[in-house]
Amino acid sequence: MSSFRDDGALALDWVASYLERAGELPVLSQVEPGQIRAALPASPPEEPEPFEAVLRDLDDVLLPGVTHWQSPRFFAYFATTGSEPGILAELLIAGLNQVGILWRSSPALQELEELTLDWLRQLVGLPAGFHGHIEDTASTGVLASLAVARMLHPDRRVVVCSEHVHSLADKAARLLELELRKVPVDDQFRLRPELLELNDACAVVATIGTTGAAAIDPVPAIADRCQTTGAWLHVDAAYAGAAAVCPELRHHFAGWDRADSITVNPHKWLGVPMDCSALWTRRPEDFRRAFSLVPEFLQSSDDAVNLSEVSIPLGRRFRALKLWAVLRCYGRAGLQERIREHVRLAALFEEWVRGEPAWEIVAPRHFSLVCFRREGSDAENERLLERVNDSGEVFISHARLGDRYALRLAVGNFRTSEDDVRTAWDVLRREASAL
Amino acid sequence: MSSFRDDGALALDWVASYLERAGELPVLSQVEPGQIRAALPASPPEEPEPFEAVLRDLDDVLLPGVTHWQSPRFFAYFATTGSEPGILAELLIAGLNQVGILWRSSPALQELEELTLDWLRQLVGLPAGFHGHIEDTASTGVLASLAVARMLHPDRRVVVCSEHVHSLADKAARLLELELRKVPVDDQFRLRPELLELNDACAVVATIGTTGAAAIDPVPAIADRCQTTGAWLHVDAAYAGAAAVCPELRHHFAGWDRADSITVNPHKWLGVPMDCSALWTRRPEDFRRAFSLVPEFLQSSDDAVNLSEVSIPLGRRFRALKLWAVLRCYGRAGLQERIREHVRLAALFEEWVRGEPAWEIVAPRHFSLVCFRREGSDAENERLLERVNDSGEVFISHARLGDRYALRLAVGNFRTSEDDVRTAWDVLRREASAL
Repeated sequence: MSSFRDDGALALDWVASYLERAGELPVLSQVEPGQIRAALPASPPEEPEPFEAVLRDLDDVLLPGVTHWQSPRFFAYFATTGSEPGILAELLIAGLNQVGILWRSSPALQELEELTLDWLRQLVGLPAGFHGHIEDTASTGVLASLAVARMLHPDRRVVVCSEHVHSLADKAARLLELELRKVPVDDQFRLRPELLELNDACAVVATIGTTGAAAIDPVPAIADRCQTTGAWLHVDAAYAGAAAVCPELRHHFAGWDRADSITVNPHKWLGVPMDCSALWTRRPEDFRRAFSLVPEFLQSSDDAVNLSEVSIPLGRRFRALKLWAVLRCYGRAGLQERIREHVRLAALFEEWVRGEPAWEIVAPRHFSLVCFRREGSDAENERLLERVNDSGEVFISHARLGDRYALRLAVGNFRTSEDDVRTAWDVLRREASAL
Repeated sequence: MSSFRDDGALALDWVASYLERAGELPVLSQVEPGQIRAALPASPPEEPEPFEAVLRDLDDVLLPGVTHWQSPRFFAYFATTGSEPGILAELLIAGLNQVGILWRSSPALQELEELTLDWLRQLVGLPAGFHGHIEDTASTGVLASLAVARMLHPDRRVVVCSEHVHSLADKAARLLELELRKVPVDDQFRLRPELLELNDACAVVATIGTTGAAAIDPVPAIADRCQTTGAWLHVDAAYAGAAAVCPELRHHFAGWDRADSITVNPHKWLGVPMDCSALWTRRPEDFRRAFSLVPEFLQSSDDAVNLSEVSIPLGRRFRALKLWAVLRCYGRAGLQERIREHVRLAALFEEWVRGEPAWEIVAPRHFSLVCFRREGSDAENERLLERVNDSGEVFISHARLGDRYALRLAVGNFRTSEDDVRTAWDVLRREASAL
C-alpha cells in the first residue's frame, strides 16, 4: 500500500475539486436502476489495489450515480450541507476511530457529546435541564423516546400525532406495537388540538416544521393537554430546529421547552455532514431506566453514566467532534447569517411565485421551504416536476397537501446563492411553458 | 474561514502524525470523569474560529481523554482497526454527503451497498441468496431481525439464546417486548442444544464468537431445531465472522448458511472505521414487509426497492464507500494475511500462558481472543487487570466465564506486532509479581 500521506493528499484534492465542481453536475442522478452495479465487478479483488484505483472508479463509475446533495441547486426534501469543517472533522473521527461503548472506552467522546449538545441547547434557546445525546437520525430518536413513553404508561398503547407527521412515527409505532392515531390538520396543515383525545395515549409527537409544508403544530396547546393526562410530549424539529438559533424566528418554537424530548438534526440545516441527530430530554433518568443494561464485560470501577445506557445501539461514533468543529468554525454569528440568508432567499422565491399569474403559494412559509404549484391538474404539476428534475439543472421535490399535489423548494445548502434560486425559478417557468 | 485545501492539509497531517504516534500514548485514557468537559468552555463561541483552533484543542484538551483504539497495544473488548483506506474513504463520504433515503436520492450509495455486501458474502463463503445491507451496529441488526421474527410469529413472544449472548439481545427483546430465554452453556461456553425449548419461540439468536470467550454455539443443531418449529434463526458473528475469509477457519461457521439473518461487523476485524455492521438475510421480502413505509413525499416513478424499506432509520450514510475502499485496497489476500497473523499471535500468547506456572487458559481459543487468569482469587485477578491498564502500556479487558473472573486479550488491530503481544505478556507478569 502506498503511503497514507500521499493517498491522503489525493483524497483531499478529490474532495476539494468535487466541492468546486459540484454545482456544474446534474443535480439529480440520471442513471437507471441497476446501472451502477452493473458497471462494477461482481466479485471482490483477490490482491490489493492502490487507493488511486478507488478514486478513479469513484469518478468514472460512481459519480454518475450520485445525486448531488452538495450542489447549491439541490432544493429537494430538506437541503443539507456537509460544510468544510464538518467534512474535515469526519477525517479526524475516522483517524481516531473511537468506539463509544462506555465512558472509559472514550471519555473525550462522551464528554464532548454532552458538552456540544449543551452548546446547541443554548444556541436554540432551550432552558437548562435538558440532557442531550446524538443519534444517527431522528427516526432513532423518536423510536427511543416513544419506547420510554411506553415504559412509563404500559397500559396506554396509543401515540397521537398530526396526519402530517413524518413516516418515522409510523415506523416507530410499528416497531413498538403502538397504535398511531393521526389527528386532522387545519388549513395551515397544523394539528387541530381540539381534536386531541389523549386518555389512552402514552405520547404525542408534535412537529415544528413538518416534512410536507414545514407547518408548525400548536405546541403550547398540545403541551397543556399532555400535562393533564401525563402523556409524553416529543417535539420533532428535525429540520426547523436550526432556525431557533435566530432570536427573530424563535417565536415559532413557543412551548417546545415543555417537551419531554426533542429532536433537531444538525445534519439537516446546521452544516454537519450526515449523520448527526440531536436528542434532548428533560427526563434522562427515564431514558436510563428504559435502556440501561451494563453487562459484566463492560462493568468498570468508575462512576460515569455511559451514553450507551440512554440509547439503542451499544457502540457509537465520535460524532460530537464534527458538531464541535462546525459550531466553532461558524460560531453563533456564522450560523445565524446562513439561516437568515436561506430564509431571505425562500421569501424572495415566494414573492416571485406570488407575482406570477398561473402560479400560487399553497402553504404559509415560516422558514426556508416554499410550497407552490402551477395552475392545472396534479398530473400536470407532477409532469412539470419530472421535467425540471430531468434537466439536471435543479432538483426539487413534492408533497401532498390536503388533496393537492404541491411542489417544494427547500433552501438549505450553505453554498446556495440568489442566482441559484433564480435559476430554479427560470427552469420552472421554462419547463411549464414547454409543457 | 481559511481555505478548505489548507485546513485539509493540516487535518491530514494531524491524522498521519496521530497514527505514527498512537503506539506511544497511554492506551487507556487516564482522566477522571468530568475532567475533559471541565477543560472546555461551557458555551459555544459567538464568532467563527479557525479550524486550526479545533486541531489545537484536539491535541491539548481532548487527546488525554482518548482511549486509543488505534494503538497496536489495544487488546480489550474486541480490538478494531480504522485502516488507512477506510479513514480516507470517510473523508470522501463526508465530502459527497450523500443521504440515502431512497434509491434516487443516491443510486450509487444503494447499489454500492448491495454490491459490497455481496462481495463480503462471497469472501466469508456464504451462498448466493443472501441479501445484505449495512446497519450502524449489530445491536440495530439484531433488533431489526427480531422485529421481523415477531411479525412472522405474532403469538410466540419468546427469543431463545445462550446465557453468553451479547447484551444487544437483551436490549432488542426489551424494545420489542419479547421474553429472552437464556439457555445454559456447556464447559466450553456453548449453548446446550438439548436444552432448547422452541415451541413458543419466534426466534433463536446463536452466536459464533461470543463476547466473553469467543465461544461457538452449535449452529447446525440449532438450525435443525429451528427448521422443525419455524423459529427465525439469527447468527451473531459480529466479531468472528471476519475469520470466515480464511478457508482454514471456515469450519467454525458450519450451519450459518442456514440462518435467516446474520450479522458480521466489518468495523471490528476487517479494517473498516466505526460504524459498519453487515446484515444479511435470506428473507429480504419479510424485512420489506416489516419495515416498508414509503410516504408520499418519497414516492417516485422508478421501480427500485429502497434500502430504507428494509431497515429502521430512513436516512443512511454512504458507508458502503469505506467498505468498498477497504476490500479493494486489501483484497482477499490482504485480509486473510492479517487475520492469520492475529490468530498466530493469539496462539503464541496462549502458548506462553500455558507454559508459565500459576497462569492458566480458561476457555478454548478458536480465533484471536485468549481468555486466561492467574492463580488466586477473582479479586486478585481484577486488581491485576487494573494495574495493567493503569500502566497505560496495554489495555486488556475481562469477562465472567462460569463462576470465574477471566482476563481477555483480543488481538485485532492491523498494526499489532509480535512485540506488542510480548509487551502485554511482560506487563502482565510484571504487575502480577508486584501484587
